[in-house]
This record gives sequence, structure tokens and C-alpha cells, in this order.
Amino acid sequence: MTFWKNLFGNGDTATAGQATSPQGEMLEAAGELPDGGRIVFSTTRDIDLYELEELCDAVGWARRPMRKVGKAIQYSFLVVSMWELQGSRRRLVGFARATSDHAFNATIWDVVVHPKLQSKGFGKALMRYAIAKLRREDISNITLFADAQVVDFYRRLGFVLDPEGIKGMFWYPD
Amino acid sequence: MTFWKNLFGNGDTATAGQATSPQGEMLEAAGELPDGGRIVFSTTRDIDLYELEELCDAVGWARRPMRKVGKAIQYSFLVVSMWELQGSRRRLVGFARATSDHAFNATIWDVVVHPKLQSKGFGKALMRYAIAKLRREDISNITLFADAQVVDFYRRLGFVLDPEGIKGMFWYPD
Ligand SMILES: CC(C)(COP(=O)(O)OP(=O)(O)OC[C@H]1O[C@@H](n2cnc3c(N)ncnc32)[C@H](O)[C@@H]1OP(=O)(O)O)[C@@H](O)C(=O)NCCC(=O)NCCS
Ligand SMILES: CC(C)(COP(=O)(O)OP(=O)(O)OC[C@H]1O[C@@H](n2cnc3c(N)ncnc32)[C@H](O)[C@@H]1OP(=O)(O)O)[C@@H](O)C(=O)NCCC(=O)NCCS
Repeated sequence: MTFWKNLFGNGDTATAGQATSPQGEMLEAAGELPDGGRIVFSTTRDIDLYELEELCDAVGWARRPMRKVGKAIQYSFLVVSMWELQGSRRRLVGFARATSDHAFNATIWDVVVHPKLQSKGFGKALMRYAIAKLRREDISNITLFADAQVVDFYRRLGFVLDPEGIKGMFWYPD
Repeated sequence: MTFWKNLFGNGDTATAGQATSPQGEMLEAAGELPDGGRIVFSTTRDIDLYELEELCDAVGWARRPMRKVGKAIQYSFLVVSMWELQGSRRRLVGFARATSDHAFNATIWDVVVHPKLQSKGFGKALMRYAIAKLRREDISNITLFADAQVVDFYRRLGFVLDPEGIKGMFWYPD
């Protein structure tokens, strides 16, 4: 995780609002925690796969082969991560990614916020950040497949169910 | 269209069943027409964008900027085209493409069969060809968004509507 070591390991403290990584990547502030921790968003793909697995474990998702998770991150069009910063420590607390044809459509997958930080508006902020990034790339058709229990979460963000009767479908082998 | 010129412009005639392009790409036979024409599938990305536009016009789809269509083809994980061969002539008569993370999921877009060739089983064959290609790449989650009037077409192919309550959603700007 050289990315974060460079950024926070040399006495550097990111200023409020935004910080820039050594690679010139913008970290966007998402909020502050009562204990002084700060939450930032990033689009780095430099994510420790063990840390991501821990995050997914925390919300009860089935484990997936790490090699494939790494490949999926590599070939996703957009990867958004959310980090909790405490001094020079950082922890992955949120994630989302999108596949895309780089032209018309993007499909968002694997949206997750650590249980400790849920219901504080961070999921909404994470999704808004992802949507803004996709819009900036001129993607007009942003789609996703929502688990039944989170349909309302996405609805509040402007996602519409089955618009004009368009239906999400999944292929099952016979 | 050097691809096809090489293949059919030098007196070469593809044999029944399968043919191989000069690039080593396999053309898979999909069927024969009463007038002697043959239908083949390909995964070439070497598609004349004007010809693709004509095909999409024929089913009444809204026009899209050609530059973006080209980019979408370039960044799709899988591009399947269907061609009608008559002697040394070839015509694009079907198309489908899929975005993917190259690991877990693929989403199929822009499925189309020329009206002249619809209702003859070619749409089904095109989709089966695409599904087989995706399965061979170890993609387990094949998804799509179906227009209301083609839900039954996809259902016959093994696609399931809203499995376990998972819902397709589209983002609309406020
Ligand atoms: C779904 C998830 C990302 C939401 O993140 P979050 O940080 O808890 O959500 P927020 O606090 O930003 O909530 C934003 C709004 O959605 C609502 N909301 C949050 N979770 C909701 C849910 N499961 N169902 C309905 N509404 C929900 C909130 O009440 C809030 O409404 P408001 O804007 O009117 O106040 C998070 O709960 C999570 O990671 N869940 C487990 C993993 C998961 O199910 N992911 C989705 C897979 S498709
Ligand atoms: C949808 C489309 C690709 C189907 O291709 P096709 O070659 O006509 O389909 P097939 O002949 O292979 O049909 C396969 C099966 O689906 C059925 N079917 C075909 N089109 C159907 C439709 N619109 N609704 C319901 N069933 C349909 C056929 O009756 C056939 O059933 P069977 O296997 O029991 O005999 C083609 O009609 C098309 O290009 N339509 C316009 C573009 C479009 O709407 N694309 C989908 C966008 S999401």
C-alpha cells in the first residue's frame, strides 16, 4: 500500500476538503466522525484484497476467490473506495465499482458500507460520488441490480425500477 | 473490411460447419437460407459502423453517435456478429455485445436480428453463441435488461426475471 504510505507515512496530513495523492489523484472528503476520524473517497485501484474481503465479510457476503476479485477490480471501469483516516492510519470502510462500455452504459456492482458506518449518509455519498464520476465520463445510462432490501436505498438516489417495463434478468444454467 | 476481403475475396469459399478467418478466428455456422445463403457467427470487432447503423435502423432503434458506438465496441468484453454470406458477399444481419469485469459478471446489450431474418431461430442461436462464449471465459453471472416485449424471448433462453427479488434499476438525472 505504497499509495497511502506516501500520503500519510511522512508526517503529511491531508487538509480539510480535499487532498491529493502522490499520483495526483484527488481524495474527496466525505465527512468527519465524532472521534476525529475523517472519511474520504478515492478511485484508487490500489486496494488490499484482504481488507476488501474483511469489509465484505462484515456485511455477510459470500467469499469470492481473491484472484478473481483482483481481476474484477482491474477490469472495472470505475472503482470507488471509502476510507476512514485516523492520523496516519487508514481503513477501508466502503466500496463500489462499475463495469462499462466506456461510451453509453455503466452497471454498478458490489456497493458496500461498513456496518459501523451505515445509516449515517455515507452510502448515499458514496453512490453520489460514483454517479458524478460516471457522468463526468459522459456515461448516460447508469444501471444496477438491487437486492430486494436495498431497492428503496437506490430509489432515494434517483434510480428507477423497471422504467418503461425494462426488466433486469439473470441467466441460469439449465 | 480487409477481414472479409481476405476471406472471401480470393475465390475462397468457407466449408460447411466452420471456417477460419485469416486471423485464425473461427466463424461458426448458424444455418442455411432457402436461397443458398449461409449464416455465420463471429466475434470480430472489425465491424463497419455504417453497416451496424443500418441494422439498428432496420429495427427502429434511435441513432447513436458513431464515434461512441465504435468506442463501445472497443470496450465491450464480447462482441458477437451474425453475417449472411452469399458467394463472396457478406452482410451484417445480427449483433450483440456484452460488458464485463472479466471475472464474475457480464451484461448483454444491443441484441438485434435483421427483421428479414427474425422468427427463424437466429436470435436464439445468437444468444446461445454469446452465452457459450461468456461461460468459456468463466463468467458465472450473465445479466441483461430486457425491453418489455422481449422478456419472453429471453425467458425461453433461461433468463430469469428478478431472481430472489433482485431488481434492475436505471438512474435518471433529477
Ligand atoms: C446499502 C448500503 C450501502 C447503504 O449505505 P448506508 O450508508 O447505510 O446508507 P445511507 O445512510 O447513506 O442511507 C441513505 C438513505 O437510504 C436509506 N437507506 C439506507 N439503507 C436502506 C435500506 N437497506 N433500505 C431502504 N432504505 C435505506 C436511508 O434511510 C437514507 O434515507 P434518507 O436519505 O431519507 O435519510 C449499506 O447499508 C450496506 O452496505 N448494506 C450491506 C450491503 C448491501 O446490501 N449492498 C447492496 C447490494 S445490491
Ligand atoms: C428479439 C430478437 C433479437 C429475437 O430474434 P429472433 O431471431 O426473431 O428470435 P428467434 O426466432 O430465435 O426466437 C426464439 C424464440 O423466442 C421467441 N420470440 C422471438 N421474439 C420474441 C418476442 N419479441 N417475444 C416473445 N418471444 C419471442 C420465438 O417465438 C422463439 O420461440 P421458440 O423457441 O419457442 O420457437 C429480434 O426479434 C430483434 O432483433 N428484435 C428487435 C430488437 C430488439 O427488440 N432487441 C432486444 C432489445 S432488449
